[in-house]
Amino acid sequence: MRKQMALGANMLCLWVFTITIQAYSSVVEASQTPLPSWADGRTKTVIIEFVQKVTDPNSPYFVPEDMRVATFDNDGTLWPEYPIYTQLLFAQDRVKAMAPKHPEWKTQQPFKALLEGDHQGVAASGMKGLMEIVMATHSGMTADAFAKEAGEWLRTTKHPKFQMPYSEAVYTPQLELLAYLRANGFRTFIVSGGGIAFMRPVSQESYGIPPYQVVGSSVVTKYEQRDGEYQLVRQPKVGFINDKEGKPVGIYEHIGLRPILAFGNSDSDMQMIQYTTDGDGLRLGLYLHHTDADREYAYDRKSHVGTLDKVLDIAEEHDWLIVDMKRDWLKVVE
Amino acid sequence: MRKQMALGANMLCLWVFTITIQAYSSVVEASQTPLPSWADGRTKTVIIEFVQKVTDPNSPYFVPEDMRVATFDNDGTLWPEYPIYTQLLFAQDRVKAMAPKHPEWKTQQPFKALLEGDHQGVAASGMKGLMEIVMATHSGMTADAFAKEAGEWLRTTKHPKFQMPYSEAVYTPQLELLAYLRANGFRTFIVSGGGIAFMRPVSQESYGIPPYQVVGSSVVTKYEQRDGEYQLVRQPKVGFINDKEGKPVGIYEHIGLRPILAFGNSDSDMQMIQYTTDGDGLRLGLYLHHTDADREYAYDRKSHVGTLDKVLDIAEEHDWLIVDMKRDWLKVVE
Repeated sequence: MRKQMALGANMLCLWVFTITIQAYSSVVEASQTPLPSWADGRTKTVIIEFVQKVTDPNSPYFVPEDMRVATFDNDGTLWPEYPIYTQLLFAQDRVKAMAPKHPEWKTQQPFKALLEGDHQGVAASGMKGLMEIVMATHSGMTADAFAKEAGEWLRTTKHPKFQMPYSEAVYTPQLELLAYLRANGFRTFIVSGGGIAFMRPVSQESYGIPPYQVVGSSVVTKYEQRDGEYQLVRQPKVGFINDKEGKPVGIYEHIGLRPILAFGNSDSDMQMIQYTTDGDGLRLGLYLHHTDADREYAYDRKSHVGTLDKVLDIAEEHDWLIVDMKRDWLKVVE
Repeated sequence: MRKQMALGANMLCLWVFTITIQAYSSVVEASQTPLPSWADGRTKTVIIEFVQKVTDPNSPYFVPEDMRVATFDNDGTLWPEYPIYTQLLFAQDRVKAMAPKHPEWKTQQPFKALLEGDHQGVAASGMKGLMEIVMATHSGMTADAFAKEAGEWLRTTKHPKFQMPYSEAVYTPQLELLAYLRANGFRTFIVSGGGIAFMRPVSQESYGIPPYQVVGSSVVTKYEQRDGEYQLVRQPKVGFINDKEGKPVGIYEHIGLRPILAFGNSDSDMQMIQYTTDGDGLRLGLYLHHTDADREYAYDRKSHVGTLDKVLDIAEEHDWLIVDMKRDWLKVVE
C-alpha cells in the first residue's frame, strides 16, 4: 500500500518535474549557451555541432557514453607553456635545492645552464640533457614523497605573467570545454609529454580530471623495501616518453579506445590528432594557436616551446580545426 | 515570471519527491539487501560495513567519491582460471591455426606441449616458455586486429564446465559486488597478470568495466606505417609484467591512487593487497578461496594455477579477509 502511494506520488511528480525542466531549459537556453568564454563563430559552432551529433541517439554518428573519449595535451593546451615549461621550472627549483650536495653541477651541463636560469642553454642540451635533469630531480624518492613535493610546488609557485599559482593558471575556455564534454557523457583525459606523476597531484583540482585519467611520460618505478616497509620507489631510468609517436601508444596502453576528440597545440600532438581523426565515424581534431601577445603569448613556427609549424600547412587537408586564441577566446586565464 | 513559476513548482516537487524517495527506501530495504548471492555471515557484513564507513560523510573513514578505488584480479577472482588460464587456451587455438606455417613447433617446446594440449608441460617451460607463446601469438598484428580476434574468441568459445562462452562464465557474486561498489561511488578496476589487450575487448560487457579501467601485462606497441596508413602494431617484445611486485607498479602507472579495496585469489595478488591495506585510513583486502569442488573447483596450496599458500598463513595477522566460496557464495556462475 505504502509502495503504491509512493508510486502514485512519484508519477505525478515526474510529470510536474518534466514540465518544470522543459520550462527551465528554455529559460536557460535563452540566457546562456554552452562555452560562454568562447566567441560566437565557426570554431564554437563546429565544437557544439560535433557534440550534438555524437550524443544524439538518432544520429548516424551516435557514440555510446562509455566510448566517448576526449584527450587533451596539457602544456600549451590546458595551461600555458610559455616562457618555459612549468615542469622545467620545478626541476630548476629542485636542482637549486640539491646543488650544495652536487658541487660538480657548477660546471657540468645541462645543470650549469639550469642553475643560471639559462633556458636556451638547457634547450640546447636536447632530449639527452632534459632526461639527465629529470633523472636527477624526479627519481630516488618514493612515489608518495614526489607527489607531495610536486603538488605543493604547483600550489604555491606563481606564474610570472598571471601571478597565480601554476595549479590555478589554467585556460578558462578549456575548463568550460572539459565540463561541457563531461556533461555530455564524455570521459576527459590528459595526454601529455609532461611527467604523469608531476600532473596527477593537481589534475583533479585544476581540471576536474582524476589521476587515473592522466597519461604522461614516466620513470621506471619499483615496489621495494625502504625504511622497513614496502614502498613504490622511483628509479633513475626512463620508463615511457609520451610524446609524438608515443602519444597514440600511451593512449592504447592507458585508455584502450581511440579518442573521438583530441586537442593539442603543437607538431608534437600531430600523431595523437591523426590517430584520433583516422578513426571511423565522426571525429574532431583541434589545435590551439597561440596568437594573443597581449592576453597570453604569440608564437608558432619557430619557438623553443610547442612549435606549431607542419600542422599549420596540413591542417586544412586533414580537416583539423585551428582554434585562434585571439579570435576564438573571450577570456584566457582568469 | 515563467522562471519563478518553474521554481515554485520545482520546490513543491522536490518536497514530494523527497518523501517519495524516503518511502521507497524503506520498502527497498525491507525487501532486499545488497549482494543477494552472498550468504549472510561475517564476510558479507565486513564488506557492507566497510562500504558504509567509507561513504558516510560523517564517518572518520570517509573517502571522497573520485578517490574510492577498488581493484580486482581477474583470473580466479572475477572469472574461473581452472582447469587452465583462459588466455592460454586462446594462445593454444592460435598456435594450432598458425602451426602449418611453423613445422618446427612439432618438436620445439613449449609449442609441442601446447599443440598436444599438455598444459603441465607448458607450465614446466616456466615464465620463459609462456613468454615465447605470448610473443608468437599476441604480436605482429595491429592493435585493432588483435582486439577483434580476442573478443570474438571469448564470445564464442565455451568453458568446459559451465558450457557458456568465456565472456559470460563470470562469478555472479562478483558482478553484484562490482555493481554495489559502483552504486556507492567506487571506481572499479581490473588489475590482472593477464594481457591487458586480451581482457579489454569484453571488459565492458562481462563486468561493466570500460577498457580504460583495465590494467594488465602488455607487449611493446609502436605507432608505425602499415599498408599505407599509420597503425598501432604489437611488437614481439615484452612490455610490462603486471604480476606480483608488478601489480602495485601497474596500479601506480595506470591509476595513480592507492586502492582502498583490493580483491585477489592467490599469492601473486599479495603485493597488491599489501599495498592497499598498508595505506592510511580504512582499507579492505580480500582473497577468494576456491573451496567448492561441486559448483566450481577446490584448490589452494599446491596448484598449477593461482596458488593460495603463503597468504593462508599470514592473512589473519594482516587482517585480510578470506572469502570461502563454498560458505560465502550462494551462487557461483549463472
